[in-house]
Amino acid sequence: MRILGIDPGLRRTGFGVIDVDGPRLLYVASGTIVVPDKLEMAERLKTILDHIREVAADTRPGVAAVEKVFLNTNPSSTLLLGQARGAAMCALADSGLQVHEYTALQIKKSVVGSGRAAKEQVQHMVQRLLSLSGLPSPDSADALACAICHAHMQPLVAALQARPLGGAPAHRLRNGRLVV
Amino acid sequence: MRILGIDPGLRRTGFGVIDVDGPRLLYVASGTIVVPDKLEMAERLKTILDHIREVAADTRPGVAAVEKVFLNTNPSSTLLLGQARGAAMCALADSGLQVHEYTALQIKKSVVGSGRAAKEQVQHMVQRLLSLSGLPSPDSADALACAICHAHMQPLVAALQARPLGGAPAHRLRNGRLVV
Repeated sequence: MRILGIDPGLRRTGFGVIDVDGPRLLYVASGTIVVPDKLEMAERLKTILDHIREVAADTRPGVAAVEKVFLNTNPSSTLLLGQARGAAMCALADSGLQVHEYTALQIKKSVVGSGRAAKEQVQHMVQRLLSLSGLPSPDSADALACAICHAHMQPLVAALQARPLGGAPAHRLRNGRLVV
Repeated sequence: MRILGIDPGLRRTGFGVIDVDGPRLLYVASGTIVVPDKLEMAERLKTILDHIREVAADTRPGVAAVEKVFLNTNPSSTLLLGQARGAAMCALADSGLQVHEYTALQIKKSVVGSGRAAKEQVQHMVQRLLSLSGLPSPDSADALACAICHAHMQPLVAALQARPLGGAPAHRLRNGRLVV
């Protein structure tokens, strides 16, 4: 199963692709779509639409997971976030992908074990869980964490990770958190 | 000049297409995209994306105008509205259209002469300005009003409508409002 995770934002949209191979999680790709502020709104949204469709076409995921955006107290900011999220979800649906949604709390709990984890903790755990040579950028890390969260939500993955396989599995789940 | 106006919403998205022929405004098409509540969010947004792209492909407008959505006091509702708006703007940009945005205040002032006009007044004035045989639905009327507002914002249209043409022009502008 290949999962495309998206952390949507109007200025910066993170994307991360992982493969789930039995109990193992493998890194495929990640990055940040940076949208110039000076573009007209429709062009900014089109940039997100086009780039996510491109990532989907290049990496051919089987499913997508999107972070539920933070509800800003400023209604204008919430509207802008909503528009960016709408563009991201349109791109995924337009690429034929089923889209699952997870809150930041669910994602942090799944990757770090606590919903109150700092951004740096998420970056460190994503690096560790996917055996990356370097620390991923905050946007990439959030998107990869979203994909990892979706993997953990699959009963088959959870079962494989919990089952004794003769030796210790590569990863195990403890309180919804991957234990390496 | 053919204008596609959009009044975006997650449940109901209105669309309206008009032609601007010198000082005249001509009705081309209008309707409402009704999105089933029971669909997953990505599917709901995809429905808006697909239908607007279809309308654009069928009617071949040269430019698009979108109503700036009302900022709800409920952040969740604002986020949902933002997502629907994002999907609508993506569809327009994906159809190669330049997108102009107008507030409800600008649209009402342009069509009814007052920013505080009731929905029914907008419907009646849209019917009158476009010489429609019947009253358009509220969603269609808002979308057509958005297209009319964009027409009024064009210096050429405004000049033609204000210029004495030997006889009285079909429509004139008074205080930003079309006078029939």
